[in-house]
Amino acid sequence: MEQEYASTLLENAVNELSRLPGIGRKTALRLALHILRQDEKSGISLGQSIIDLRKGIRYCTVCHNISETETCAICSNPARDSSLVCVVESVKDVMLIESTGQFHGLYHVLGGLVSPMDGIGPSDLEIASLVERVSEGNIDEVILALSATMEGETTEFYIYRKLGTLPVKITRLARGVSVGNDIEYTDEITLGRSLINRTLFSESFNRNNQ
Amino acid sequence: MEQEYASTLLENAVNELSRLPGIGRKTALRLALHILRQDEKSGISLGQSIIDLRKGIRYCTVCHNISETETCAICSNPARDSSLVCVVESVKDVMLIESTGQFHGLYHVLGGLVSPMDGIGPSDLEIASLVERVSEGNIDEVILALSATMEGETTEFYIYRKLGTLPVKITRLARGVSVGNDIEYTDEITLGRSLINRTLFSESFNRNNQ
Repeated sequence: MEQEYASTLLENAVNELSRLPGIGRKTALRLALHILRQDEKSGISLGQSIIDLRKGIRYCTVCHNISETETCAICSNPARDSSLVCVVESVKDVMLIESTGQFHGLYHVLGGLVSPMDGIGPSDLEIASLVERVSEGNIDEVILALSATMEGETTEFYIYRKLGTLPVKITRLARGVSVGNDIEYTDEITLGRSLINRTLFSESFNRNNQ
Repeated sequence: MEQEYASTLLENAVNELSRLPGIGRKTALRLALHILRQDEKSGISLGQSIIDLRKGIRYCTVCHNISETETCAICSNPARDSSLVCVVESVKDVMLIESTGQFHGLYHVLGGLVSPMDGIGPSDLEIASLVERVSEGNIDEVILALSATMEGETTEFYIYRKLGTLPVKITRLARGVSVGNDIEYTDEITLGRSLINRTLFSESFNRNNQ
């Protein structure tokens, strides 16, 4: 349906906003009209924050996390354990793991998962740079923290093979029943794996209450 | 839940985006990361379009529709019938009515509806300016095109009373069964009104097929 916008400025803003994921033309128009109803200062600061974000953000040369400097805040923090590297799919996963407060090592952001269906091969991801980072010899353990999906497991296996010859311990996230979840609603594959990988009650109890 | 953002630029952008209606912090983060994944040019043009929108848009001094000039494109179009004024709640309604292609007069945007519950009285709306516009004597008909809600009908009645003494025809949108709707799913109040306001088949048929 053709819609006549009273102004090319409005039309431009609607076009730009509707390029964002999950935002159609109707929502974009609603957002643009909302921006017009607010005072001038807040509209401008929204626009400026997007420009600043896009201009100011770069990627850490070590772990490929987003950063405002050449090395990100995590990689350049001396209090973090640099012998421990957690491999994740995206920047979002770094934030997710940071929010658990359970990890004090460094990260390595792959920028995606191997997915032949979407035409993403290992060379499109930061896997070569991971192998290089590990070959330097200062890393004791690589934790593979990818999604428990077909793509995630394929990528984990590929990395495992690539790092296989290097003297490094390779671990992955535990698979099991979600904390707080009823066993009844856990799928059989997860339940099966959690049985195979069952842990000593005394050990598990001590770990979770330390 | 406290979330650690790797960068204050990212945090700022997420804060700004999450002020938009219907966008929570999770969606705002998703949008910000999407903007980062796109090339620099498109992120900057999104931000710039929002700034341009907020800086460049003003309101038409005649009808209060959005405009880039003192008088909007509709009010300054000599091809439009300036003796016919359609009163609407918002800028969005102007676009909606324009998209029907059925109206060739001018508009008057109230900027809201009378709503005592939300503390909006007639003096908060562009009603005085409508009365002034009509008193100038060049308007033959005022069409009240407000929502068929309690607030819409209250506002229509208020305007009707205010314009009552002036020599102008006051009409409102027809209420009735939605075109394409099954009668079974039409509420009884609408159905009742559409019975009371039934139209001559020959007239209605001619009008809708002209």
